[in-house]
Order: sequence, then structure tokens, then C-alpha cells
Amino acid sequence: MTGKFIVIEGLEGAGKSTAINLVAKILAEHGIAEPQLTREPGGTPLAEQMRILVKQGHPDEPLTDMAELLLLYAARSQLVENVIKPALAQGRWVVGDRHDMSSQAYQGGGRGFDPAVMENLRDTVLGDFRPDLTLYMDIDPVLGLERARGRGELDRIEQMDIDFFHRTRARFLALAEQDPSVVMIDASQSLAAVSAEITQALNTWLEQQ
Amino acid sequence: MTGKFIVIEGLEGAGKSTAINLVAKILAEHGIAEPQLTREPGGTPLAEQMRILVKQGHPDEPLTDMAELLLLYAARSQLVENVIKPALAQGRWVVGDRHDMSSQAYQGGGRGFDPAVMENLRDTVLGDFRPDLTLYMDIDPVLGLERARGRGELDRIEQMDIDFFHRTRARFLALAEQDPSVVMIDASQSLAAVSAEITQALNTWLEQQ
Repeated sequence: MTGKFIVIEGLEGAGKSTAINLVAKILAEHGIAEPQLTREPGGTPLAEQMRILVKQGHPDEPLTDMAELLLLYAARSQLVENVIKPALAQGRWVVGDRHDMSSQAYQGGGRGFDPAVMENLRDTVLGDFRPDLTLYMDIDPVLGLERARGRGELDRIEQMDIDFFHRTRARFLALAEQDPSVVMIDASQSLAAVSAEITQALNTWLEQQ
Repeated sequence: MTGKFIVIEGLEGAGKSTAINLVAKILAEHGIAEPQLTREPGGTPLAEQMRILVKQGHPDEPLTDMAELLLLYAARSQLVENVIKPALAQGRWVVGDRHDMSSQAYQGGGRGFDPAVMENLRDTVLGDFRPDLTLYMDIDPVLGLERARGRGELDRIEQMDIDFFHRTRARFLALAEQDPSVVMIDASQSLAAVSAEITQALNTWLEQQ
């Protein structure tokens, strides 16, 4: 049996890390031990170097929106080809902290790249490779960023203005609505309620596999 | 008056550096002093970091052909937006050591990417921005690599097998034939003959501007 690829998506402060730990725990209860955990951008030696360029930019030079987009896909290519696909082929499950939906939302929605450019790039880089299940943790960016700020210094993207995140969330929501492999979780609830929603969604999905 | 963008292209060992110095000297004779010199991939702080990833890769992880292609275009976006276009807008001339034709030849020809992917990426990243003049220094890769090897250690791309460079040269030649803004120079000749050919080609072109 090949493994499955489950992705956790959402804005800063949506509680992705907590969700990932919970997903790993639920998988273990179903006998799926030690899934390969990934994060994007990053997750391989080269992709982590690209992550640094995206997250930090350079003090003397702005990173163009286009270069940002291409770096994100270069990092994704490294991760998919060198980590995710090999793991799945060996029958391992993979749980990803972000994947392509983030690019569609942040760069397509937030930065405003043409949908045709976004689709083209995704299809060129990923072919028909897609997650089996995505849990999209939906949260109002005002609340999410407030939570995220508690964690310390903000990176280049977390410093964008709030309208950027509203556009990003709107694209996340639109994509979640269109794509039957995406389950939306209301991440503005209490931790207990969010956990219960994730647990139910994942158990329901696992029973169908 | 806006400046013009002249590019020197060709395989390793074709004599691009010598050609660039000669072009700068000829431009000076025409009253065009101190052109902005660029090199690709690279030429800005961020693009130079991307260059390192392309040239060196990583000892523990192969760089995918796709990530290589995207990094090259990310670096090109940085250089075009942050250096070349601003220089041209100020009336400065720009002389480039490689530009998009190298990606078309090495990645399109050498690596074998689909022409539609190559065109799409070029148009997405560059729009209709193109060099005003390209001098393509044509050389048989066997001769070119022999010359290049004399300069020391080979990078990740210079270590490709000879067929890769034959495919790359074939694409360079096909592009030079199609594109009226490309002048082909026979770089297998003596230094004096190559210099004479460049001088004549550039003087002829400059008189038409």
C-alpha cells in the first residue's frame, strides 16, 4: 500500500502545529505510526535555504513577488521529489505543514497573481500530484496574527498589512469550497472544540480509505 | 534617451568575458561610457545566493531540474527588476554576461524541458522584456570545455556529459537563426578573428541605432 498525504493549511496563528500533533496522534491510533512530517517552504536541505531567502529577503534588496513565487515552487519541487513522493512510495504517510494551497492563497490571493499564472505554475511543477486530504484551519487574520505575535519576531511575510491576509483568507475559503479533498475547520473556537472538529473530520475520512 | 541592453551568450569556454571587455571598449569609443555590467545567474545580492544554489547544489540532496529552472528565473526576476530596468530607465547601457537565451538553451535544449513550459515561464517572468542585441559566441562544446577546464574546478553544470552541451549548442543555434536580434560570432577562430567579428557586428548595429 502506498501512503497518503495529509496537509494542514491556514493563516498564521490558526493553530497548525497543534493540529499536526493531533493528526499524528490520531493516525497512531489507527496503526499509522511515525508519519513523515514536512513543512513548506522547506523540509529539505536545499528547500530550507530557499525558505530563508523567502522569509528573510535581504536588507539591501527587495525580493520581487515573482522571485518569491518561483522560490516557493523551487522549494516545493525539492520537497515533493526528494521527500514526499519517496515516502509515499515506501508506504509511509506524510503530514505536511502547508503545501500548494498556501501558494494559491498567499501569492494568488494575497499578492494578486493572475489565476492562470498560478494554475500554470502548479501544473508545471506538480503535474497531477495533490494531497489526499487537506485540513484548512480557518481563522480571521486579526485574531490569527494576534496569536502569532505572541510567539516573537515577525518575518517578512508576517509583516504584511492586514488587507493582504484578508485577501489570502478569502482565497483559502474559495479554494476550500471548490475542492472536495479540503475539510474546513473553524479555528477560532476553543482548543477543545477545534480538536474535536479535527478528530471527527479525520476519523470520518480514515474510515472511508 | 533610455539605454540599450546587450547580451553576450555562449557555452563555457566560448570567450564571453573577453567579448564583454571588447564590447565595453567599443561602446566607450562611441561615447557610451561605463555600461552596467551584469552576469546571470546572479548580479544582485539575492540573485547571487540563488546562483550558489544552482552552481553548487548540496552534497546531501540533488537539485531537481525543475528547481534549477525556477531558481534561474527567480534570480533573473531580481536582476531585471532591481538592476537592469532601473539602469535602462536612467539612460545607462547594460552589458549582460548571459540572459534568458541561456535558460532556453541549457534548460530547454540541454535538460529537455518542453518548449511550451520554457516559453510560458519566460513570458510570465519577463513579459515582453528582451535584449536589444545578443552576441551569441558559437563554439563546439568539445573545444569550449577544453578551454574552460584550463580555468580550474568545474561546477555542477560544467560537469554534465558532452551530449548535454551538444543539445545546448543545438538550441543556441536554432534560437540564433530564428531571432533577428541575435548575431552569431564564430568563437572557434583565433582571438584576433573573433575580436574583428565582434567589432564589426557591434559597430554595424550601433550605426543603426
